[in-house]
Amino acid sequence: MNVATTLSEFRTRRARLEEPVGFVPTMGFLHEGHLSLARLARSSCKSVVASIFVNPTQFAPTEDLSSYPRDLDSDLELLEKEGVDLVLAPSNNDEFYPEGYGTWVDVGGITQRLEGTSRPTHFRGVATIVAKLFNIVGPQRAFFGQKDAQQALVIRRLIRDLNYDIELILGPTIREPDGLAMSSRNAYLSIEQRAAAPVLRRCLMLVESLYTDGERDGEMLRHAMLDVLQSEPLVQPDYVSVADLNTLEELKIIEVVALVSLAVRIGSTRLIDNTVLPPGERLF
Amino acid sequence: MNVATTLSEFRTRRARLEEPVGFVPTMGFLHEGHLSLARLARSSCKSVVASIFVNPTQFAPTEDLSSYPRDLDSDLELLEKEGVDLVLAPSNNDEFYPEGYGTWVDVGGITQRLEGTSRPTHFRGVATIVAKLFNIVGPQRAFFGQKDAQQALVIRRLIRDLNYDIELILGPTIREPDGLAMSSRNAYLSIEQRAAAPVLRRCLMLVESLYTDGERDGEMLRHAMLDVLQSEPLVQPDYVSVADLNTLEELKIIEVVALVSLAVRIGSTRLIDNTVLPPGERLF
Repeated sequence: MNVATTLSEFRTRRARLEEPVGFVPTMGFLHEGHLSLARLARSSCKSVVASIFVNPTQFAPTEDLSSYPRDLDSDLELLEKEGVDLVLAPSNNDEFYPEGYGTWVDVGGITQRLEGTSRPTHFRGVATIVAKLFNIVGPQRAFFGQKDAQQALVIRRLIRDLNYDIELILGPTIREPDGLAMSSRNAYLSIEQRAAAPVLRRCLMLVESLYTDGERDGEMLRHAMLDVLQSEPLVQPDYVSVADLNTLEELKIIEVVALVSLAVRIGSTRLIDNTVLPPGERLF
Repeated sequence: MNVATTLSEFRTRRARLEEPVGFVPTMGFLHEGHLSLARLARSSCKSVVASIFVNPTQFAPTEDLSSYPRDLDSDLELLEKEGVDLVLAPSNNDEFYPEGYGTWVDVGGITQRLEGTSRPTHFRGVATIVAKLFNIVGPQRAFFGQKDAQQALVIRRLIRDLNYDIELILGPTIREPDGLAMSSRNAYLSIEQRAAAPVLRRCLMLVESLYTDGERDGEMLRHAMLDVLQSEPLVQPDYVSVADLNTLEELKIIEVVALVSLAVRIGSTRLIDNTVLPPGERLF
């Protein structure tokens, strides 16, 4: 496995890779969710590229950029085990964001909802770094996780709108045995907080079960989630949503498919999770 | 020469081209300025791609989108003579801007000045279509004209900021015998207006001559241009500028190099021109 810490080094090594190239962008501190994407890429592409970059522009000044967990040595070891061919792990931010940087990619529409309400500049940062990485890596396929469902929808829109010739492949959310979705941010949780965190998955399972029993009223389902969250005193709800899969507008009545998602704070840690209705349906 | 009217047809044909690929994006109604760029590409690249697309998103609702001159048959004949290999000439706008389109590339900073003052959404439209075209064409070199100097600076910034691996090559402004810079919009001018139009070049030549005689005061040079423009009753000045080449901020004193540019209206036709000081210096 080759590791490039500069863009010019990366480009030289990338030019030697056989295509199709599969690309797994990450912010590092890798868990089984990331590794499942690397495996998916390995099984379907001639070459696999991963990136490890904690992108500062998708964090607001009040957010956890400086404390975001990092462990490059362990990450590289894990990626090597998955048979990744080439890793882009920039040693500083300046190559991506030089002095005077001012170019932004804004996908509009769906970026204003859900996560966008709580984190107004988040998806502008995500779309910009992903466009940059696409231009640097030149992949034929890109792998993202369903855990960040709205992000996946934003990237799908980015690819379509900016005419990237890239196939977007979605990997399933990978969970801990107690149902908590894997996330690098789980590392922030104290033992007590960690014990409360599976409540997100319990909300989603309740909604799936209500749906299966015939409930189609969006407001009822949102209230059901809030009720479950209120049973955990350590958990502060940010939003609960039952939304149209394309527009992310809140649904009064579920007619076809819906994205059910929620965000909470546990102490200063923000966690998200989601599912698609009908249960078992895919995001795309 | 192959002509693709759909993106999928274009991609199939593009995949067969030898690299490096040189790319000349145009809005059609081609003149010697465009053709000189095609020639520059032909002389330095294995393959040459041109695009012909009147991009609606760089026109404001009040501007001349609907009347913008078009002549596809003549354009294709001219490109064929220059040895262009492949032309992208989309037969409708929907492939670039489908229903619900909402993704924009904004280069910020310099896009707010000069042309950006008169045309606030213009460069957002330019940066977006150029990013899209770069993603579709995948060129190694892209050719733009100095006539649209600010556009060239915006594209340079776009390439750097979004990490496109594309060499930007600038062709010189091509002029009519009386000094008028070639532009598709010159076709709008009546005989009287056309006779007045070389005043733009006279302004620039006066500034070059004042500079050569030692004048370095930006305000003096701007006033000198306005004085010349006022001698032509058919011409309404939009702006005259003596600006820093990197920031496009107006200069009090020219210390190193400067971009001298101006925009005027002649009737309802808007014309621009520019030069770099010291005379003979390049934009980049």
